[in-house]
Amino acid sequence: MIRTVYWEDGQIALIDQTLLPYEYVTLRLRDYHQAAHAIRTMQVRGAPAIGVTAGLAMALAAGAVDATAARPVFDQEMKIAGRELASTRPTAVNLFWAIEQILSILRSHADWTTKQCQAAVLTRALNMVDEDIAANRALGFHGASLVPDDATILTHCNAGALACAGFGTALGVVRAAVELGKNVRVISDETRPRLQGAQLTCWELQQDGIPVTLISDNVAGSLMRRGNIDLVVVGADRIAANGDTANKIGTYSVAVLARENDVPFYVAAPTSTVDLSLPDGDGIPIEERDPGEVTRIGDHPIGPAGVKALNLAFDVTPARYVQAIITERGIARPPYLESLRRLVNPDEPGAGR
Amino acid sequence: MIRTVYWEDGQIALIDQTLLPYEYVTLRLRDYHQAAHAIRTMQVRGAPAIGVTAGLAMALAAGAVDATAARPVFDQEMKIAGRELASTRPTAVNLFWAIEQILSILRSHADWTTKQCQAAVLTRALNMVDEDIAANRALGFHGASLVPDDATILTHCNAGALACAGFGTALGVVRAAVELGKNVRVISDETRPRLQGAQLTCWELQQDGIPVTLISDNVAGSLMRRGNIDLVVVGADRIAANGDTANKIGTYSVAVLARENDVPFYVAAPTSTVDLSLPDGDGIPIEERDPGEVTRIGDHPIGPAGVKALNLAFDVTPARYVQAIITERGIARPPYLESLRRLVNPDEPGAGR
Repeated sequence: MIRTVYWEDGQIALIDQTLLPYEYVTLRLRDYHQAAHAIRTMQVRGAPAIGVTAGLAMALAAGAVDATAARPVFDQEMKIAGRELASTRPTAVNLFWAIEQILSILRSHADWTTKQCQAAVLTRALNMVDEDIAANRALGFHGASLVPDDATILTHCNAGALACAGFGTALGVVRAAVELGKNVRVISDETRPRLQGAQLTCWELQQDGIPVTLISDNVAGSLMRRGNIDLVVVGADRIAANGDTANKIGTYSVAVLARENDVPFYVAAPTSTVDLSLPDGDGIPIEERDPGEVTRIGDHPIGPAGVKALNLAFDVTPARYVQAIITERGIARPPYLESLRRLVNPDEPGAGR
Repeated sequence: MIRTVYWEDGQIALIDQTLLPYEYVTLRLRDYHQAAHAIRTMQVRGAPAIGVTAGLAMALAAGAVDATAARPVFDQEMKIAGRELASTRPTAVNLFWAIEQILSILRSHADWTTKQCQAAVLTRALNMVDEDIAANRALGFHGASLVPDDATILTHCNAGALACAGFGTALGVVRAAVELGKNVRVISDETRPRLQGAQLTCWELQQDGIPVTLISDNVAGSLMRRGNIDLVVVGADRIAANGDTANKIGTYSVAVLARENDVPFYVAAPTSTVDLSLPDGDGIPIEERDPGEVTRIGDHPIGPAGVKALNLAFDVTPARYVQAIITERGIARPPYLESLRRLVNPDEPGAGR
């Protein structure tokens, strides 16, 4: 099994995804600055993987403080670490979720010593790794119920094991369907500009022996129109309370084309990706990245010298295009305002109404 | 002015488009086999440019026959040349149109000597070059009436001067709008897998000083949803009698996204691109090209070794997504079955009804 981010010998170990599929290199991160760098440079990417990395980075930050330090000193260091990690990328909410999970432990336990806090932070961070894989397995099996027995599944970008601690969200649905004995094959959008579909999705499905065909992003619509796609499943970087979903740029186009061709379009994401604080997708910050990612592929220039380029990294798919949102706690159906809230806060009074 | 394909010193001169925008090389083709090779390898591409090249290649074939040869010998040679040229690429109808234009001269003039035929073939081929540029200028100015004064125009692939003998179809509309003093800027889809948008459209607009911004294909939908695109204009490789339009892969997706966001979607093409023999787009052959175009960009591999890929070069946009088809004889509006026929056969009895 591919383990993308894990804890080993007091360090974060993660697969350097900027080198895949040509080199398989495991990085060891000794402090949270290195973790922030790895997130910023996309050595680790994918909303759940970023969240887990941030959680483990907070554990590195905690461990770096003298265990005998006073709590205010420790808390201050943790806030600084949280701010640095939160500044790395704007769209995936799992990053902020993970940092907040750690900081809320500290707020709830003002009476603990720094040493007790360090132990609690590490425990919480390690749990995030296991919880992520468990959540993906759970959502994968929920989602597999939506996969017909003999299915061609289109996916965009990489919402696989490499986007998480392991197993994957969208590709978790694929893996669960395979484990249930279903006959599935995947069509992978290459996903310009960073090519995560070509470089990561194709690679990890090859590792598992799941049939995959690479297409340029432009082909997806044609295949849907020809009736060659049975369903679409993608991941998410942030889901607003009404189900509007931010995900890799191009997801919106796939969703519109799916609806136009009566192909079911599903989003697969853990509940930590849902941001109930945002009423709709308009409030989700969309990262704009270096235009050089568009004008070059690797070191290879693809446009004329000096050409201007625009590089939006994500887009928002309005909820009306989404047939269902698959989470580890079950499948949310429209209207999402109710169904998502019930899944995110199952114990909330009135959430079950 | 960019002249993409022309006749010089008894040879075809054309810009090698596989080297742009990094090298500007003019090829000289001495026989029709070289022309077939140039079309097949996409040194020349774009439906009208392919048509003109095929016409000139027929002139090369004609000129290679001994002027004293008997007509049956000459006619046989011309048929062989026509077959070889017709086998190069399947989708753009202009190729077949140009070959047929030449062969029909021979059929209509069984009484002519080989020498007379050679002169007539060359004259017709040279006319095609001039007619193409004139047609593009005419369609450009018709189309410019659809461009608001301060417009952001999205285009896909390259339907520019480089896709024609000169001036361009979709980019002819842009150029005409600029000549009329309108303030326009272009958003160019990079157009994977061959990147004609990045490499050709951006280059030729830069040459003319027309503002252009390069995006990956995945961004187009987002820009339309944000209200940043005023209209879309693309070229065509073949238009069926009902207006269904084959064009570069991804055009269908752009058209669907345009309709979804109430952005006008226009096709610009000379009437030689209209194939009235096909009732609808289902009959248009769609070229499937080397999967290596998808798994590599230039020499740069983008997927894991051994990954399977599918490379459809064109798609069909159903006529219901097309607001208007801009030709050199005027603008066709739905229902296209009537409006296109009227433009293609203006003298046909009943065509004016």
